[in-house]
Amino acid sequence: MKHLLSIGDLTPDSAVDLLDEADRFKAALLGREVRKLPTLRGRTVMTVFFENSTRTRASFEVAGKWMSADVINVSAGTSSVSKGESLRDTAATLHAIGADALIVRHPASGAPRQVARWTAEMAQDGVAPSVINAGDGMHEHPTQALLDALTLRDRLGGIEGRRVGIVGDILHSRVARSNALLLTMLGADVVLIAPPTLMPLGADGWGVTVAHDLDSELPGLDAVMMLRVQAERMRGGFFPSPREYSIRYGLSETRRRMLPEHAVILHPGPMLRGMEIGYSVADSPQAAPLQQVANGVHVRMAVLFRLLVGGQVDA
Amino acid sequence: MKHLLSIGDLTPDSAVDLLDEADRFKAALLGREVRKLPTLRGRTVMTVFFENSTRTRASFEVAGKWMSADVINVSAGTSSVSKGESLRDTAATLHAIGADALIVRHPASGAPRQVARWTAEMAQDGVAPSVINAGDGMHEHPTQALLDALTLRDRLGGIEGRRVGIVGDILHSRVARSNALLLTMLGADVVLIAPPTLMPLGADGWGVTVAHDLDSELPGLDAVMMLRVQAERMRGGFFPSPREYSIRYGLSETRRRMLPEHAVILHPGPMLRGMEIGYSVADSPQAAPLQQVANGVHVRMAVLFRLLVGGQVDA
Amino acid sequence: MKHLLSIGDLTPDSAVDLLDEADRFKAALLGREVRKLPTLRGRTVMTVFFENSTRTRASFEVAGKWMSADVINVSAGTSSVSKGESLRDTAATLHAIGADALIVRHPASGAPRQVARWTAEMAQDGVAPSVINAGDGMHEHPTQALLDALTLRDRLGGIEGRRVGIVGDILHSRVARSNALLLTMLGADVVLIAPPTLMPLGADGWGVTVAHDLDSELPGLDAVMMLRVQAERMRGGFFPSPREYSIRYGLSETRRRMLPEHAVILHPGPMLRGMEIGYSVADSPQAAPLQQVANGVHVRMAVLFRLLVGGQVDA
Repeated sequence: MKHLLSIGDLTPDSAVDLLDEADRFKAALLGREVRKLPTLRGRTVMTVFFENSTRTRASFEVAGKWMSADVINVSAGTSSVSKGESLRDTAATLHAIGADALIVRHPASGAPRQVARWTAEMAQDGVAPSVINAGDGMHEHPTQALLDALTLRDRLGGIEGRRVGIVGDILHSRVARSNALLLTMLGADVVLIAPPTLMPLGADGWGVTVAHDLDSELPGLDAVMMLRVQAERMRGGFFPSPREYSIRYGLSETRRRMLPEHAVILHPGPMLRGMEIGYSVADSPQAAPLQQVANGVHVRMAVLFRLLVGGQVDA
Repeated sequence: MKHLLSIGDLTPDSAVDLLDEADRFKAALLGREVRKLPTLRGRTVMTVFFENSTRTRASFEVAGKWMSADVINVSAGTSSVSKGESLRDTAATLHAIGADALIVRHPASGAPRQVARWTAEMAQDGVAPSVINAGDGMHEHPTQALLDALTLRDRLGGIEGRRVGIVGDILHSRVARSNALLLTMLGADVVLIAPPTLMPLGADGWGVTVAHDLDSELPGLDAVMMLRVQAERMRGGFFPSPREYSIRYGLSETRRRMLPEHAVILHPGPMLRGMEIGYSVADSPQAAPLQQVANGVHVRMAVLFRLLVGGQVDA
Repeated sequence: MKHLLSIGDLTPDSAVDLLDEADRFKAALLGREVRKLPTLRGRTVMTVFFENSTRTRASFEVAGKWMSADVINVSAGTSSVSKGESLRDTAATLHAIGADALIVRHPASGAPRQVARWTAEMAQDGVAPSVINAGDGMHEHPTQALLDALTLRDRLGGIEGRRVGIVGDILHSRVARSNALLLTMLGADVVLIAPPTLMPLGADGWGVTVAHDLDSELPGLDAVMMLRVQAERMRGGFFPSPREYSIRYGLSETRRRMLPEHAVILHPGPMLRGMEIGYSVADSPQAAPLQQVANGVHVRMAVLFRLLVGGQVDA
């Protein structure tokens, strides 16, 4: 595997392999005071973020540093882009400076795939960098989906046959898209739950179930994944308003009690408590937001390791 | 010691222990070309700054790196806070990503203590991170007080019984508060010197002397600590104006000559020369601003070491 | 050599020595998966950028990290400068925090030289930091000139006697100035090609040829160095307008064909394709922008190594 640009780059086997590898990293670090492996010593990893994100950038930075990589952070605010340079030239330049991996977050869907293509075309030495999509527009966020899958596997003992509801602004959510693709690939039964205005056209062709009424779905779910409300997209007369959204699709304490007791509650963060998720719900034992975050580091270690070092073919 | 949130977390013994530990780090690095100790290898330290500060952030970053820690910088501008996340969730997330220590600067007094409480409550693994207050609102800045105490001890041979004047905008200064608390704890005789409008109510209950006339105090001081003039707080008809402040409380060359010859001049920086301190005064042999800065790194090494690794109970 | 502030700090011998040293670093890293040398372990390098620059900052950061230095990034936006501190105090503070080298980019010509002078004056321990000019105003950018020279030497087999055209906004370009000085020092025959309004007064005294007509010069050049169009300087009725500039001084495909086949095309980046250089021209085999970038890291390793560690007197 050279790049991780979308869930479509994975097979069921390679996805499970990444989850297993993440578990191995977790076990290798568990309870150790000294969290430092020599795995990526002398490799150079650059985070190239054209949108701000503390948690994702820091998660990749920690993953790289715990494997002894040199990690360089590049952000859009300080980048040559503001001087009119094309993304193609920026990417080729960062590779020429020495990046073995480019971790790209970009507001435009497809940008990381273009970066992978361009840097391969322009590589001076015939060795192109690995590119990891850390979130592109409304398209995909594959490491988020992997960390969610790992968390579900931890909590539910497996993914196959489990029923997972993804709730909220599906239309604009790269997290929803990557999760729907990965979870169905791993055999889960995925239900997208959103108002019609926030459901992508053609979602019923994704191999998922489409629903609009959260309350009637909750009792049948093994897991519910709440999405971040992007309130800026719901202003100006659109339906629903943030308040209506919260009332109809927020995971209140009342709704939490409609879930089976074993059900897991996921949220990719940052959470707007009181809006898409109740204050106490986010802290309930069923909620797993911090486990998701912790798994994120291990998943990103696994991805960086597989892309930069390789590993067993049949894991 | 788990956290360093305020001077109140210290005893006279533990404060002296930190100063002694800082001296040991200074001796270990002195004159060495290779300033690198393995002390914190595999520990992850995050600076989480909701206010800008070059010197304090860089000082902690150097302290961590010289002990081989992985240091991750998080700043408010790029943080999830701008997406509406609560400080509680941000802090818990950074811990879940892997922080062993959170170094927090925040405009709200008490924020680091809340972070310590919240991350302990929310810790998945039962192991909470250590939290260091790197300046919170108008409350405290304990590592600044420690580096000032170390500088006074270096210059004066001791702190007990020395008379230290703290001059200027005491009301808004976390530096003044932490210094007054620490220096009195260590047996100094502290005089707060400020116009009545910039003296906190109840300061006479801090175990210090309160004075308003700088000139009459100078001859009796072993050390004078000038504070940064926060001119933005003195506008709009308040007394004194920046100009009056400078005239009455600035440490001019004339005033420097009123000090005893052995007296030390401290300033936490950044200095506005010509305003709170004369151009030449800041470069005089009595002035110690760069020694303060250098001591800052050693003090922060000592604090990180004590919090993350521990050490002798009776130092 | 203590500092690298301008090309005037170099002799022909020391310049060639740096290029040779850069070649040694390139050879030492070539094709290695683990790009990590222990050369600067325990040395602290700070990038202090008062102007944004992804490529230059990241290039120095990679150079430092590949030699195991601790690299600390300080940028103007977050610096104490915004609180009114003088550059003199900022620089002395960063040295007191522990910088062995300060890599300074500043909008004011001469700022890095002042930093070198000030930090030497104010050094507590008698050991001043090395200062590297990473671009100062319209003055100099010596590491850019060194990486350009290295690229020309790679491509042309040597510099002496080669004819190099530097094209465009010479007046405002620190890259042009440093290159003209270095290339003439190394025996090249330099032609500055620009409209009269963008040619510095007195340029004919630099030991170079001055020309205004690009087309008549192209057939005689071994290398052509295009400069970045700083369009913001060409607005408001000045001649030429960006469009005229592009027509008369842009390196179009037609103009590329007027060059000898062996000629090299350089551009310091970021490139505005379609403006100062044609889309396809920048990707032609004659164009070397990515080789320049890659050489930049090796040149900066050589400079940091020579300044911080030293090396053979006669290299």
